[in-house]
Amino acid sequence: MTSWTHRDAAPLPDDTLTRLDGWWRAANYLSVGQIYLLRNPLLRTPLTRDDVKPRLLGHWGTTPGLNFLYAHLNRVIAERSQSTIYVTGPGHGGPGLVASAYLDGTYTEIYPDITGDTEGLTRLFRQFSFPGGIPSHVAPETPGSIHEGGELGYALSHAYGAAFDNPHLLVAAVVGDGEAETGPLATSWHSNKLLNPAKDGVVLPILHLNGYKIANPTVLARIPSEELSSLMVGYGHHPYFFEVSEDEEHAGDPADAHRRFATLLDEVLNEIATLKAAAAAGDERRPCWPMIVFRTPKGWTGPAYIDGKKTTGSWRAHQVPLSNARDTAEHLQVLADWLASYRPDELFDADGRIDPEIAALAPDGQLRMSDNPHANGGLLLKDLRLPDFRDFAVDVPAPGATVAEATRVLGQWLTEVVRRNPDNFRIFGPDETASNRLQAVYDATDKQWDAEYLSPEVDEHLARAGQVVEMLSEHQCEGWLEGYLLTGRHGLFNCYEAFIHVIDSMFNQHAKWLKVTNHIPWRRPIASLNYLLSSHVWRQDHNGFSHQDPGFIDHVVNKSADVVRVYLPPDANTLLSTYDHCLRTRQYVNVVVSGKQPAPNFLTMEQAIAHCTRGLGIWEWASTEELGSDPDVVLAAAGDVPTLEALAAADLLRAHLPDLKVRFVNVVDLMRLQDATEHPHGLSSDEFDMIFTRDKPIIFAYHGYPWLIHRLTYRRTNHGNLHVRGYKEEGTTTTPFDMVMLNDLDRYHLVMDVIDRVPGLKSTCAALRQEMMDSRIAAREYTREHGDDIPEVRDWVWPAARGSMGPDGASAASATGGDNE
Amino acid sequence: MTSWTHRDAAPLPDDTLTRLDGWWRAANYLSVGQIYLLRNPLLRTPLTRDDVKPRLLGHWGTTPGLNFLYAHLNRVIAERSQSTIYVTGPGHGGPGLVASAYLDGTYTEIYPDITGDTEGLTRLFRQFSFPGGIPSHVAPETPGSIHEGGELGYALSHAYGAAFDNPHLLVAAVVGDGEAETGPLATSWHSNKLLNPAKDGVVLPILHLNGYKIANPTVLARIPSEELSSLMVGYGHHPYFFEVSEDEEHAGDPADAHRRFATLLDEVLNEIATLKAAAAAGDERRPCWPMIVFRTPKGWTGPAYIDGKKTTGSWRAHQVPLSNARDTAEHLQVLADWLASYRPDELFDADGRIDPEIAALAPDGQLRMSDNPHANGGLLLKDLRLPDFRDFAVDVPAPGATVAEATRVLGQWLTEVVRRNPDNFRIFGPDETASNRLQAVYDATDKQWDAEYLSPEVDEHLARAGQVVEMLSEHQCEGWLEGYLLTGRHGLFNCYEAFIHVIDSMFNQHAKWLKVTNHIPWRRPIASLNYLLSSHVWRQDHNGFSHQDPGFIDHVVNKSADVVRVYLPPDANTLLSTYDHCLRTRQYVNVVVSGKQPAPNFLTMEQAIAHCTRGLGIWEWASTEELGSDPDVVLAAAGDVPTLEALAAADLLRAHLPDLKVRFVNVVDLMRLQDATEHPHGLSSDEFDMIFTRDKPIIFAYHGYPWLIHRLTYRRTNHGNLHVRGYKEEGTTTTPFDMVMLNDLDRYHLVMDVIDRVPGLKSTCAALRQEMMDSRIAAREYTREHGDDIPEVRDWVWPAARGSMGPDGASAASATGGDNE
Repeated sequence: MTSWTHRDAAPLPDDTLTRLDGWWRAANYLSVGQIYLLRNPLLRTPLTRDDVKPRLLGHWGTTPGLNFLYAHLNRVIAERSQSTIYVTGPGHGGPGLVASAYLDGTYTEIYPDITGDTEGLTRLFRQFSFPGGIPSHVAPETPGSIHEGGELGYALSHAYGAAFDNPHLLVAAVVGDGEAETGPLATSWHSNKLLNPAKDGVVLPILHLNGYKIANPTVLARIPSEELSSLMVGYGHHPYFFEVSEDEEHAGDPADAHRRFATLLDEVLNEIATLKAAAAAGDERRPCWPMIVFRTPKGWTGPAYIDGKKTTGSWRAHQVPLSNARDTAEHLQVLADWLASYRPDELFDADGRIDPEIAALAPDGQLRMSDNPHANGGLLLKDLRLPDFRDFAVDVPAPGATVAEATRVLGQWLTEVVRRNPDNFRIFGPDETASNRLQAVYDATDKQWDAEYLSPEVDEHLARAGQVVEMLSEHQCEGWLEGYLLTGRHGLFNCYEAFIHVIDSMFNQHAKWLKVTNHIPWRRPIASLNYLLSSHVWRQDHNGFSHQDPGFIDHVVNKSADVVRVYLPPDANTLLSTYDHCLRTRQYVNVVVSGKQPAPNFLTMEQAIAHCTRGLGIWEWASTEELGSDPDVVLAAAGDVPTLEALAAADLLRAHLPDLKVRFVNVVDLMRLQDATEHPHGLSSDEFDMIFTRDKPIIFAYHGYPWLIHRLTYRRTNHGNLHVRGYKEEGTTTTPFDMVMLNDLDRYHLVMDVIDRVPGLKSTCAALRQEMMDSRIAAREYTREHGDDIPEVRDWVWPAARGSMGPDGASAASATGGDNE
Repeated sequence: MTSWTHRDAAPLPDDTLTRLDGWWRAANYLSVGQIYLLRNPLLRTPLTRDDVKPRLLGHWGTTPGLNFLYAHLNRVIAERSQSTIYVTGPGHGGPGLVASAYLDGTYTEIYPDITGDTEGLTRLFRQFSFPGGIPSHVAPETPGSIHEGGELGYALSHAYGAAFDNPHLLVAAVVGDGEAETGPLATSWHSNKLLNPAKDGVVLPILHLNGYKIANPTVLARIPSEELSSLMVGYGHHPYFFEVSEDEEHAGDPADAHRRFATLLDEVLNEIATLKAAAAAGDERRPCWPMIVFRTPKGWTGPAYIDGKKTTGSWRAHQVPLSNARDTAEHLQVLADWLASYRPDELFDADGRIDPEIAALAPDGQLRMSDNPHANGGLLLKDLRLPDFRDFAVDVPAPGATVAEATRVLGQWLTEVVRRNPDNFRIFGPDETASNRLQAVYDATDKQWDAEYLSPEVDEHLARAGQVVEMLSEHQCEGWLEGYLLTGRHGLFNCYEAFIHVIDSMFNQHAKWLKVTNHIPWRRPIASLNYLLSSHVWRQDHNGFSHQDPGFIDHVVNKSADVVRVYLPPDANTLLSTYDHCLRTRQYVNVVVSGKQPAPNFLTMEQAIAHCTRGLGIWEWASTEELGSDPDVVLAAAGDVPTLEALAAADLLRAHLPDLKVRFVNVVDLMRLQDATEHPHGLSSDEFDMIFTRDKPIIFAYHGYPWLIHRLTYRRTNHGNLHVRGYKEEGTTTTPFDMVMLNDLDRYHLVMDVIDRVPGLKSTCAALRQEMMDSRIAAREYTREHGDDIPEVRDWVWPAARGSMGPDGASAASATGGDNE
């Protein structure tokens, strides 16, 4: 593989210019054809109303610029054999990318029905934004794409994610000037401080300044060019400016534009080659990477005016400029003239085949941007080399007999994952990897950082290259990880639970991408997107109410059941087992929520594996039911803090109501609660009834908003007896037990729930109920007086553990003050 | 009121310097005291272990810088009588803002228990981040704040929102350098292009470059200062640089820092005065506003090293640097020395009263930033002058007899709202106000734009001042609107439904703010945050799957029932009535979802008002039940497209099963479905049963994810008979009817559902069921052939309307091609 070649400057040969312009005209023609034409694709007969689609749906404005760039990139890729992918920030330019993939042959290879002749052209045009056809955006269906441009803002973070650990890859990332106004895009320029110039690839941002959004000018097109230049310099780039003025556009001959851009692109690629050579020679300090400001009229080459209104070079070119093409003969003629302006007869032969001279502009094989395997990452995906997670198990001589910080234990295993997979596994996080207690990984790697360094006493674990990437932007972490996964690698995103909502909409788009690609055979499966949500709702001692939100789970389960998985491991060994599973899966979004505070371990590794494999199950050691008959009550829990409280409640019940038959159920895999017909992990109705009974009260302690459990189980036989305690949006500055009390999820309240719901207990256990209430009041009073939890709660351990550990050991479970920063 | 005064440069008088430094030391002392001390607030006896809180929770690192700025702003505010509010981007600096409000007297005025003496100091310290006390962040409880700094990124958009239409207000907006890495903050610098220099106030961004986040250096602190300067110039600012080096910090005498900063601040305020004067004289072109880069060591004035590790000037100062203060005598001494370094005996008298000379630094009354009424916007809130929405009603001679685009009708009413409230009502949107068909408002106002202008033929409806503010960033729109509301004004945010998820987490924080302020008596109610979500899931003809997501409603209903309201008006008149209500409410988040496509009007204004007042109800004209007895089936709908399909299903049932007694129910106010005990709008159990029956099948056509309806109704008597059709994450390039068919929400499927669920029909109506299935297949085939919906669907009208309008009129309902751009 060659890459980062330097080529001496030379004027553009005339035949190359002809090819470039031919390609561009062809791509533009094919784009307009896709938007407007139902038949008669080459206008071999005069255009009629019936040739035009009845519903004109799509976007033209950004397309000709994207086509121009694609053509010119083709030239330099071929000349330099430079592996390159194209990230289309202005995803509305779907027809352009489809056109280019058709011109370079990829489209027909992948979709054999779309042949390189008149019949294929007809189908190509018809399918675009048509029922049963393809979407109007650059989409999973578009070869060469890793980026759906429907929701704007992520072009650069996707591009950098693709570039990490791909030292020979150039990512040409076109940023729309509308998209450039979004927050995520605005900060993603700074990604260049997190890139290693030797070990990673290169991102070439191309800011497509076409001037307008749907209905407004864009901000960056309406600031002085010196200001824009300062902005790009401020972002750490060396900006190159290219402009096609409207006057030039109106003159109609693009030869000069082609020549100027070709020269500029050669300069830029030579500069990149120089910077890469320096890095390869050992200078890994942050280079000032080039970027291009590409200012062209919106809708370039389209009709200048329609119905007397300026169209090209205005927001009116954004969507379908001639939306009324079928209405009058005059409009129809505008469309016919527009199509004819590309001189299709020069581009396609009598059979509708593209002139081979034009097609020859494309590079060969996988150098074609539409066929680059990095843009179909599953092709390159290798399994991770995973250490045996059993080797990292915590010792559990009896349930609750030892204490661990679950994420810290996970971090020890991840350290070995990092070590064994130095080139295809990364951890992303918004400044919280250590706060989330994964810091063991710094034994094996560092945080990649290519901005300035000060002294080692403040720059711990920072290095020019490393497998942890942190910036205080959940958008960046999500975008980078998506780009990394989509190009065939593995990783995880660790985040505070509450703030993962920052990327709700990015999750939506990725989940949609996965769902669609499940039905696109040529798209190979990619590694799952793994979240580790820690610093969760129940332990926000430092931060309180603003940091409490368990609703990401609710958000996730709205997406297609084929794609989403949610896990709530109750302790360290179950977390290890769960994460090992997640890192082995493909095409999912795995959400794992786990606390980072010291907490008791309940299951041995053997038990943990069995429990995680089942996804939910009865903990016999915590139950008091008799074999072979139904219990009096089911006490269920999902999540680490709820499990602790539910076990403490079970302990209270043993002490106070020794004859009560309690079944203790723990749920790790939340999707098990759904019906088998709703989710592939769902339990059958019979299985569910066997565990939760058909008619006994269920008291369910849940990590998040309680309604979700009802939503997942409303079809179950025994749903009428289900009573869920969870987070009710109540919280402020608290201690851990104060927090669960505020939301009625505490052990005392769970016991009261049992008394209230098991037939007969309400009348016989009035005194016990009162005692529970008094215990709550006492606990509240103690907390307000001492600023800490009452010792009987703080130092509580499961009965079986009382022999094996003293109160000192147990109190370690809650004595540490720190939670989130 | 004076504002924007120019003052000649003069050296800082010594007594002012003494006051400034005294204030700063006092604020720092009070901040450290809050974090660490449980008693002995003035160290009048030697510090003991028991004086220190058992759980040390809070953040120190950013606090001294915030205190320094607050002190210096006090001086210039007093000297210039300049109304100023302080937006604390680094919200973790809670103790600092509380300390400053205590020093200027506001705190004691608001919380009389926190007196200005030793007893009050004890309570002040104890309550901080303590059970039953106040949060550790700048929070609703903090006087002077409009900005909870728990989730980072919104300081500048809040600040600009506060500045709009407040021509005399200075908003000093401190931006943390951690926060500066977030996407929303990165783009919010561009807000200066949307501000009018004469009619709006001024935002003074102060980038607090304290160098570190939780565990990492910050990006902006680790780029060359020329690069940072370029970035700020690129953002359109004139940057002023202020730096306290670590050497200077170690030298211990801050006098020089005070002098330099005072000079700088005078320069900056004089520059602002000059720019405001020019604008007042008529030059409203965008000024190059000043901003300050404020580079100080993190944890400034704290212990330089703790346990041999560099603390001040490092990320180790972020949270509680001496988290182990109680552990050893040595650590306790570090804390004692640290506290003593502020020389508290010089600051407080024997009774714990602050030296009046220091307190005199504060300006008077409402010029105190903690007492500025703009930061308690409800104090300034005036009711909107609302035009009578009845005057904007569409004519509905019979149900379905006329067609309107609901949001376009709303836009006509909003035009008059805009006209009558020129100074306290704004519409925010990400480039979609016209796309969402509200463009009538441009008859009364323009889009405010203070970047460059080109020709009028492309710059339609742009003006230097206007009540519509658009930028392609949902974060900006949300942040501006929040800032605008929190300072006592009104507004709405119009957005594509799918992309409102971009601000899920911002909604969370605002909803939490409202919930908390409901319990803070001195915080006066503010206007509700109103969303208008259009271009919704069912009509994404141009954009397809990526633009389809109705889940914001699910997200919203997780928040406190006191705060959230969700409305799904089925037509134009109900939308008018709903929105009139929303603009009159306080302290809510109102989510209104409404289509923008031509669609039939069903209710006269009189009916619409009654229907909206009830929130849900039986549409007798669409029902075939007999009075006084239960129907055979309840056909229910919520949302405009589902209502249309359910009515079409009711029509099919009339034709094919004339004896079937159908009750037609429409739901506008989704919260009515919840139980009265769960939500203030909830129906009682009896009311619900009266409408939905106790035992008849309910076929419910719903706008969003179907599970939400189950979640809201699982406790209802008849929930077992409820069958919901909604969006199931199925969609791609479609026609309107194809889209509803993909999700089984179409009329034919609803009829099949009725047949399947009404006892007895399954056996007798096999032929009809088959016919419905065939109709679906025919509709699908037609669409795939013609690219449009089958005429029998497209041109369908409700029976009562068939006399009054021809098929031409009816077909207007779906003939227009355009949906979203």
